[in-house]
Amino acid sequence: MYRRKIPGMAITRLSIYSRILAGIDDGRTISSKELAELSGHSDSQLRRDLTYFGQFGIPGKGYQVKELKRRIHSILGIDRTWNVALVGAGNLGSALARYKGFELQGFKIKAVFDNNKRKIGRTLGNVTIQDMEELPRSAKKRNIKIAVITAPMEAAQELASLLTEAGVKAILNFAPVRIFVPSKVKLVNVDLAMELENLSYFLAKAGKGNDH
Amino acid sequence: MYRRKIPGMAITRLSIYSRILAGIDDGRTISSKELAELSGHSDSQLRRDLTYFGQFGIPGKGYQVKELKRRIHSILGIDRTWNVALVGAGNLGSALARYKGFELQGFKIKAVFDNNKRKIGRTLGNVTIQDMEELPRSAKKRNIKIAVITAPMEAAQELASLLTEAGVKAILNFAPVRIFVPSKVKLVNVDLAMELENLSYFLAKAGKGNDH
Repeated sequence: MYRRKIPGMAITRLSIYSRILAGIDDGRTISSKELAELSGHSDSQLRRDLTYFGQFGIPGKGYQVKELKRRIHSILGIDRTWNVALVGAGNLGSALARYKGFELQGFKIKAVFDNNKRKIGRTLGNVTIQDMEELPRSAKKRNIKIAVITAPMEAAQELASLLTEAGVKAILNFAPVRIFVPSKVKLVNVDLAMELENLSYFLAKAGKGNDH
Repeated sequence: MYRRKIPGMAITRLSIYSRILAGIDDGRTISSKELAELSGHSDSQLRRDLTYFGQFGIPGKGYQVKELKRRIHSILGIDRTWNVALVGAGNLGSALARYKGFELQGFKIKAVFDNNKRKIGRTLGNVTIQDMEELPRSAKKRNIKIAVITAPMEAAQELASLLTEAGVKAILNFAPVRIFVPSKVKLVNVDLAMELENLSYFLAKAGKGNDH
């Protein structure tokens, strides 16, 4: 099925289509044109994205919403649940532990680690903060496949190595530093300043800015 | 200059190239092939992205790193500073107020608002948390062009309208809810669960998951 190389941004667009579809009734059909318009992408882009994953839809009739949701969820792996660990219980970790959007897509925070003795033993979201030293044993025991690094940048590389040794297969890294993982581990870096650059690009084009 | 429609994802890739270039010496040149490899995109993609913005580089020699940095910073609008307001001083707002990556790219948090009386008057990062009621006056006075919504989803739409009235031209929304702004205002929604879906897609492809 996945023979062709799928661009990473096609995956992001699938997530967007999935968010739009969540607000649409299961019983109806939707044309590629309508879904494309709602998502802010072009009709041809949407059809190309979907054909990466085989045949969808009925020519001339569009897509059955229920079936399209099911297929996209299956491709994105959100038709199952994932046990997630949070590494770093600072402000960002605390915000993510309480972030409603994760549970909704099947991402369950099952462990939180920190090395601050005052935090260990406290409850965050639904779990008890554990000592970072517990990470290797605890991550294995809880069958953690996905970890989110919200620790300071100085610690990020060491934590990534620990996580990999503990059997974690995918890491979301919020620390603003480049980290390295074995090629079998999937790494996504979140750089929040990039989101702001998307805004400043538009404002700069319009000739704005607080100094030049 | 900006006659053709630039895909939003080309802007994201420019941010990525900019991050890579930050680690490369100003005095040298770099080929499109080398920069493409370092960024994880294809050579042809990189060259297409750059030609959206006019002629760059010397045929056969590549790009002068210093000049390429300058041009990309100018396109992204990070060759100047931006006064940014944070709306919502909860965990996420607090994390962002202390996020090192913002200041580095010229985004200066100049105001933080919250409606929790116990938070108002406290210091977060370098600024004093102000009452949400101060927002219209304070945002105008500080010439805020970009705002980041880190408030609960119930409040997001009302805050977006307040910000727009106060002259804010671009909004980064972390609240997991769809909000509407006038077409002259640029809105970017950050959905952190989408980043996790990028990971679960790869794991699902490999047949993993904590239940099926």
